[in-house]
Amino acid sequence: MRATIMYRAGDVRIEDVADAAIVQPTDAIVRVTRACICGSDLWPYKLMEPSESGQRMGHEAVGVVEDVGPEVRRVKRGDFVIMPFAFSDGSCQFCEEGLNTSCERGGFFGVQTPGAQAEAVRIPQADGTLYVLPAPADDALMASVLTLSDVMGTGHHAALGAGVQPGKRVAVIGDGAVGLCGVIAARRMGAEQIVIMGRHGDRIELAKAFGATDVVSERGQDAVERIRALTGGFGVHSVLECVGSAQSMETAMGIVRPGGAIGRVGVPHYDVIPLAQQGFYQNITVTGGPAPVRAYIDELLPDVVEGRIEPGRVFDREVGIEQVPDGYRAMDARESIKVMVRP
Amino acid sequence: MRATIMYRAGDVRIEDVADAAIVQPTDAIVRVTRACICGSDLWPYKLMEPSESGQRMGHEAVGVVEDVGPEVRRVKRGDFVIMPFAFSDGSCQFCEEGLNTSCERGGFFGVQTPGAQAEAVRIPQADGTLYVLPAPADDALMASVLTLSDVMGTGHHAALGAGVQPGKRVAVIGDGAVGLCGVIAARRMGAEQIVIMGRHGDRIELAKAFGATDVVSERGQDAVERIRALTGGFGVHSVLECVGSAQSMETAMGIVRPGGAIGRVGVPHYDVIPLAQQGFYQNITVTGGPAPVRAYIDELLPDVVEGRIEPGRVFDREVGIEQVPDGYRAMDARESIKVMVRP
Repeated sequence: MRATIMYRAGDVRIEDVADAAIVQPTDAIVRVTRACICGSDLWPYKLMEPSESGQRMGHEAVGVVEDVGPEVRRVKRGDFVIMPFAFSDGSCQFCEEGLNTSCERGGFFGVQTPGAQAEAVRIPQADGTLYVLPAPADDALMASVLTLSDVMGTGHHAALGAGVQPGKRVAVIGDGAVGLCGVIAARRMGAEQIVIMGRHGDRIELAKAFGATDVVSERGQDAVERIRALTGGFGVHSVLECVGSAQSMETAMGIVRPGGAIGRVGVPHYDVIPLAQQGFYQNITVTGGPAPVRAYIDELLPDVVEGRIEPGRVFDREVGIEQVPDGYRAMDARESIKVMVRP
Repeated sequence: MRATIMYRAGDVRIEDVADAAIVQPTDAIVRVTRACICGSDLWPYKLMEPSESGQRMGHEAVGVVEDVGPEVRRVKRGDFVIMPFAFSDGSCQFCEEGLNTSCERGGFFGVQTPGAQAEAVRIPQADGTLYVLPAPADDALMASVLTLSDVMGTGHHAALGAGVQPGKRVAVIGDGAVGLCGVIAARRMGAEQIVIMGRHGDRIELAKAFGATDVVSERGQDAVERIRALTGGFGVHSVLECVGSAQSMETAMGIVRPGGAIGRVGVPHYDVIPLAQQGFYQNITVTGGPAPVRAYIDELLPDVVEGRIEPGRVFDREVGIEQVPDGYRAMDARESIKVMVRP
């Protein structure tokens, strides 16, 4: 089958690999109908050290179950499923608490197991991992359903962590697909003011369509001052940190209001959280991490199916499997917000 | 009147100062019946740079209202009051949210206004700041009532921030008065396992009396390994960080379970929060700061009055105003857990 392999920063290839096949009795094989490229894939696209064997990329997909191992009970051949970006057994103490991304037998697609930018993908812990759609999804909804495998659930996680509440002020750092889904999540939870922090015209327009009320395109201290001016001088109750750089984290600490919270979902490319004393004296909460999107699908899917939220609008380009490398290039060049892959 | 002034690390003197007097129309004057020395006073006692004018110390007290300014409405002469360590107007947006330590017109005793290790103290924003006891407190309860001005409310804040829940595992870093009150708070919220981390025999005994179930006296990586061994390998759900050093914060990050939380109440003597990536991948929450103890008295006072909690047991020495310098010495030498001052 054809699959996406990254060999080093900037070097993404589509190659023939062995067909996905059952290895463990709890595995399933999913024929990928739609996958996508994630903003987090751009971090290795910029920084990855050369690797001889390469990395099998992709952690977001929907598709049809093609085969199941002998110990798979719940998932069946022919089921249409959402594949969350992390696999999890659904039964350990962490899964039971809704933190599937810390599953004792879990891991991440594209890291601990080959990824989903491919014609098919092996799903470890299939019964815990896969979300079976109750009815075949309408083709028009497919893009939005696909976002439940990562970016919409991740935006929701950021908003939950940041404690978004009705009538309150929110800032979303980053205008990538996760940031845009963060705007949807903040709006969905009833925030009154939603400031999108970004500088790409197409993304800002979409953020406004999703419910952003203000735009801040400055960075660093200028951004902090603009946010303060927009919020009566105090900053925002909730910051959704959807970038993961040292600068964005410093900005987050600068714009959060006393007693407020920062929900981190941008994969951190920094080693420490800055301004520990300022954050202390202002009683700031810093939280977040890999979103347990598996646990959020039950809550978010009805809003997608009934059209109350349209996170699928973050996709603005569609490619076949052979064009995936060009998809990476386009997202990295900010020509595209998010690329859908139809293998 | 006599008052405590610190001039530099290790140099605490009792001197004659001008009597406390109304300055603003919203002030009150409180005759101090009991004050105390705080673990946080030991930070300047170790580190304070020389100062010609010195610092008027003390931020915990109970006493009797002796005078009120013309705009004070609620508090009256003769009222017996608790003085929280921060003053606050009780009416700004932050006070209304229960975050009195971020009051727009607030500040800290001993920092923005002279402290309470003195015969009397001026109380800014008296109506918002002072908690009037409904009935004169029994002398036997006075020590516990006094802890509501800081340490008991601060331990409660740490436990709240750390998300202590019934049946869960908690670690308390630090066996000072705040850590000991953290044990009380964790027990009060129903924690099943409470690990006290400290190494002073008398404090550990008191921690056990307050509900600690386990003791870890190691530090650094050894402490992390001991906690893991005591908690099935995963760490604790909640960490109450009651020290404020870089090492204690690193320990906190090392012993917290995925999805868990750290409530910081030790005044931080570090600039950054370490292990930002590990904390992210484990979805750790870091929160806390100066406790809005004013907001907690309503909840905690009945437990004190009805004897369900006895935080006053942290006091193991009593001095007059002239012996306050020796009280600092004794606490710094760990001869005393917490010193009560009867001016």
